Amino acid sequence: MSILVVGTVAFDSIETPSGSVDSELGGSASYFAVAASFFAPVQIVGVVGKDFPQRYLDIFRQRGIDLEGLQHKSGATFHWRGRYHEDVNVRDTLELHLNVLSEFVPHLPESYRDAEYVFLGNIDPLMQMEVLSQLRGSRFLACDTMDHWIQNSRNDVDRVLGKVETLVINDSEARLLSGEHNIVRAARGILKMGPRFLLIKRGEYGVLAFSESSIFATPAYPLEEVFDPTGAGDSFAGGFLGQLARSRDHSERGLRRAIIYGSVVASFTVEDFGLRRLSKLTNEEIEERFRRFVDLTDFHT
Amino acid sequence: MSILVVGTVAFDSIETPSGSVDSELGGSASYFAVAASFFAPVQIVGVVGKDFPQRYLDIFRQRGIDLEGLQHKSGATFHWRGRYHEDVNVRDTLELHLNVLSEFVPHLPESYRDAEYVFLGNIDPLMQMEVLSQLRGSRFLACDTMDHWIQNSRNDVDRVLGKVETLVINDSEARLLSGEHNIVRAARGILKMGPRFLLIKRGEYGVLAFSESSIFATPAYPLEEVFDPTGAGDSFAGGFLGQLARSRDHSERGLRRAIIYGSVVASFTVEDFGLRRLSKLTNEEIEERFRRFVDLTDFHT
Repeated sequence: MSILVVGTVAFDSIETPSGSVDSELGGSASYFAVAASFFAPVQIVGVVGKDFPQRYLDIFRQRGIDLEGLQHKSGATFHWRGRYHEDVNVRDTLELHLNVLSEFVPHLPESYRDAEYVFLGNIDPLMQMEVLSQLRGSRFLACDTMDHWIQNSRNDVDRVLGKVETLVINDSEARLLSGEHNIVRAARGILKMGPRFLLIKRGEYGVLAFSESSIFATPAYPLEEVFDPTGAGDSFAGGFLGQLARSRDHSERGLRRAIIYGSVVASFTVEDFGLRRLSKLTNEEIEERFRRFVDLTDFHT
Repeated sequence: MSILVVGTVAFDSIETPSGSVDSELGGSASYFAVAASFFAPVQIVGVVGKDFPQRYLDIFRQRGIDLEGLQHKSGATFHWRGRYHEDVNVRDTLELHLNVLSEFVPHLPESYRDAEYVFLGNIDPLMQMEVLSQLRGSRFLACDTMDHWIQNSRNDVDRVLGKVETLVINDSEARLLSGEHNIVRAARGILKMGPRFLLIKRGEYGVLAFSESSIFATPAYPLEEVFDPTGAGDSFAGGFLGQLARSRDHSERGLRRAIIYGSVVASFTVEDFGLRRLSKLTNEEIEERFRRFVDLTDFHT
């Protein structure tokens, strides 16, 4: 069952306490797509410029990702430059060049329109709505957003929230969206905005998941080194939706196990810059770390 | 099986976003003792002044806590005044008056010297050593410490660490003690200093537990309101050692379940100022929230 993702495909120039890279493959759609590809076929909707190199396309192709929906335009690829602090939970954006992304209008190839699982990655909510308008039939719809859209395009964000089943955001975005500092009260407020299921990412502290009738909490997988946190959240979403698509188990237990698979994939992402770790990852490694995650958290059996 | 605690018994004057109180019963030994009293008999070693009111002694007595080791001196009781930010993980100390604590020398009554479970609460490490010197036989020894002692009495802290089985500290203290920012590397460093078992408290993000051969991670119980975070860490330690003393199960599973009991008791503590919530708590409420904690975190069964 294929998974459709719309989002950014980017060049990321990153400084972390562990080192730096220039024009590394990044973007929300890239991380999501590669993460989800370990679980199910993935279709990508996005845009890149003339400067986008063959070797980055090869990373997607080697993971079997369908690139028919990836537009190639004559300008430069979206470029983000950022620096992480010693506390890698904190980062500064140093430069942001939208380039070809500023004129992007998503267009879904015919073969994408029946995708059963859809992730609207962090991108202008108007583009998220455009993707929704081109889909057919019933689907599992999830989306992400960020502070910029919550602050500057709130009406559009609210329209998207009225359409999706699941929202995947981080804790500071949840506070901003709800106006509540306490994370449980923030979640209760957001569930009234439309989503039936809310995943709040807390970086190295794990994930909280809320529905009308339940709360699930999990820590993150503890790592001796977080090399580059970029893309952890999108990798989490990719592992989560990927496992749901693979298992087709939307029960409470199925959703919880999908959250753990998302956490497992994200824990690999941050072990190296950009997509370097994920592009070498194997399903055996995912399953082995899933078992370690069970051991790490088990006081139930 | 009785549990001995040495630490502060204090007046706390506290401002939080939810309100303020003046000269409320507080201190590390107070929180630990009341928390542990739900699981096993508790003996307290500490000091109070002439101004310490009968109604605070009654809180201990109603919980069946042995007060023979609580010294009554002619000065004023130790007094802390602090203010929490909107983000209640951050607090400022506004005033600190040691008063009778500055001359305190712990003295263990004869009936305390065979205590099998001992908690050296956050207090001058020289006083922690003094308690150790008065104990007889083999015991389960745990201790806490804080930034002040790590920075100013490091040799004494190291001597205590060489004697105890378990260290219970928060994440910033673990970073300070080890000189490592990454919490897993910090833990590995601390395990080389003596303790066989290390519990790192992360406030609203839960607990990480490390031994030579295993890691256990748990989130905290999510609350819609954290009224007053004071004493959460000492309540956690009290619930943890209390459950160990009650169950006498020191297996990996027993330690993990004790960590969850500690987290449960701490989650009650923060629901009201000082010891107000714990002094009304029942064992039925503890068991019910333990079951909720299982539901909250279970993807294993």
